[in-house]
Amino acid sequence: MVDTDTAVAVQLLYGRQSHSIDSGRAGEWAATFTADGVFDSPSYPEPEVGTEALTAFAQRFFDDATAAQEKRRHVITNIGIERVADDELAVDCYLQIMATPLGGETRIVRFTTVRDRVVRVDGHWLIARRAISRDDN
Amino acid sequence: MVDTDTAVAVQLLYGRQSHSIDSGRAGEWAATFTADGVFDSPSYPEPEVGTEALTAFAQRFFDDATAAQEKRRHVITNIGIERVADDELAVDCYLQIMATPLGGETRIVRFTTVRDRVVRVDGHWLIARRAISRDDN
Amino acid sequence: MVDTDTAVAVQLLYGRQSHSIDSGRAGEWAATFTADGVFDSPSYPEPEVGTEALTAFAQRFFDDATAAQEKRRHVITNIGIERVADDELAVDCYLQIMATPLGGETRIVRFTTVRDRVVRVDGHWLIARRAISRDDN
Repeated sequence: MVDTDTAVAVQLLYGRQSHSIDSGRAGEWAATFTADGVFDSPSYPEPEVGTEALTAFAQRFFDDATAAQEKRRHVITNIGIERVADDELAVDCYLQIMATPLGGETRIVRFTTVRDRVVRVDGHWLIARRAISRDDN
Repeated sequence: MVDTDTAVAVQLLYGRQSHSIDSGRAGEWAATFTADGVFDSPSYPEPEVGTEALTAFAQRFFDDATAAQEKRRHVITNIGIERVADDELAVDCYLQIMATPLGGETRIVRFTTVRDRVVRVDGHWLIARRAISRDDN
Repeated sequence: MVDTDTAVAVQLLYGRQSHSIDSGRAGEWAATFTADGVFDSPSYPEPEVGTEALTAFAQRFFDDATAAQEKRRHVITNIGIERVADDELAVDCYLQIMATPLGGETRIVRFTTVRDRVVRVDGHWLIARRAISRDDN
């Protein structure tokens, strides 16, 4: 069972995480992962590993949106949390990538599911490994 | 007023519930209802009542999606919780059914609102009655 | 850091808030703001200030939807909470306005981001100032 404090800490982590990548605060997004955290998504050629690569990835995401004159958003819902060990959780959520061009209509770019391994480091819950699946493949 | 532990237990229940039906774990979905739980939706001909019927319903949902070569998702947002009695809650949320065909684009199948009666059984919060309303009718 | 009780109180506030405006309970929606609360959105000509103006605004929103034979929904996700002072929080979330006409399909009307200043008044967290940004401008 997941205790209340842990569940809420995880909800707050996921609550703020998207705002950082979507608003161009790349370092803040990378800091939601462990120092050797892994981000593995079929939408990108290779997994990104570690703070430096994760920061660069988040910066590219934001820069690409800016270049396209779009706001792109990571919409997180359905956060499910299971305890794996005292300092380790499995977290599932749905992640919709949505985009709105300047003066245009919002579209759903893709629907994905996220499976994270979340670990406690110095009292803080951080993402050690994120694996994303796309619903269209 | 709803205390913090209760609110979070309900959030976790709703957080994981959709994953079970959407991923084909029909028994796990049925187990989020009481043994005589009722699922009443205008999208289906009759209410489903009890663990066996609820399990069969969830299995059909997943099998239909698989047959259509689609991923179908229950996206839950806006969870509002009111205490009705010590062991009973009224929970409102929004539920979007979304679908993504293999190689295709995600669409919103329908927007619905959920009103649940949630009861505490042996210390666990379970759905005793779910009533769904469709926004298109 | 935001403590667990505060975080959950804020989640519950945001969880129920949309239901009130979307279901025509205008006074209940206005009561989620302080008595001199400010609602500032680029989708409307002027900020609304204070309980009376906020109530009238919420009533117009619902009446306009009813006149258009639509259900309109405020879908809230990605609630991020930062403590600004003992009795003051900064809350960020995503807000999608969605609409479903009678017998028709659901569409995303617009994607917005919300930045709120939330304050504690007599032990209750209330919105003192809401500033909305539209992703399309």
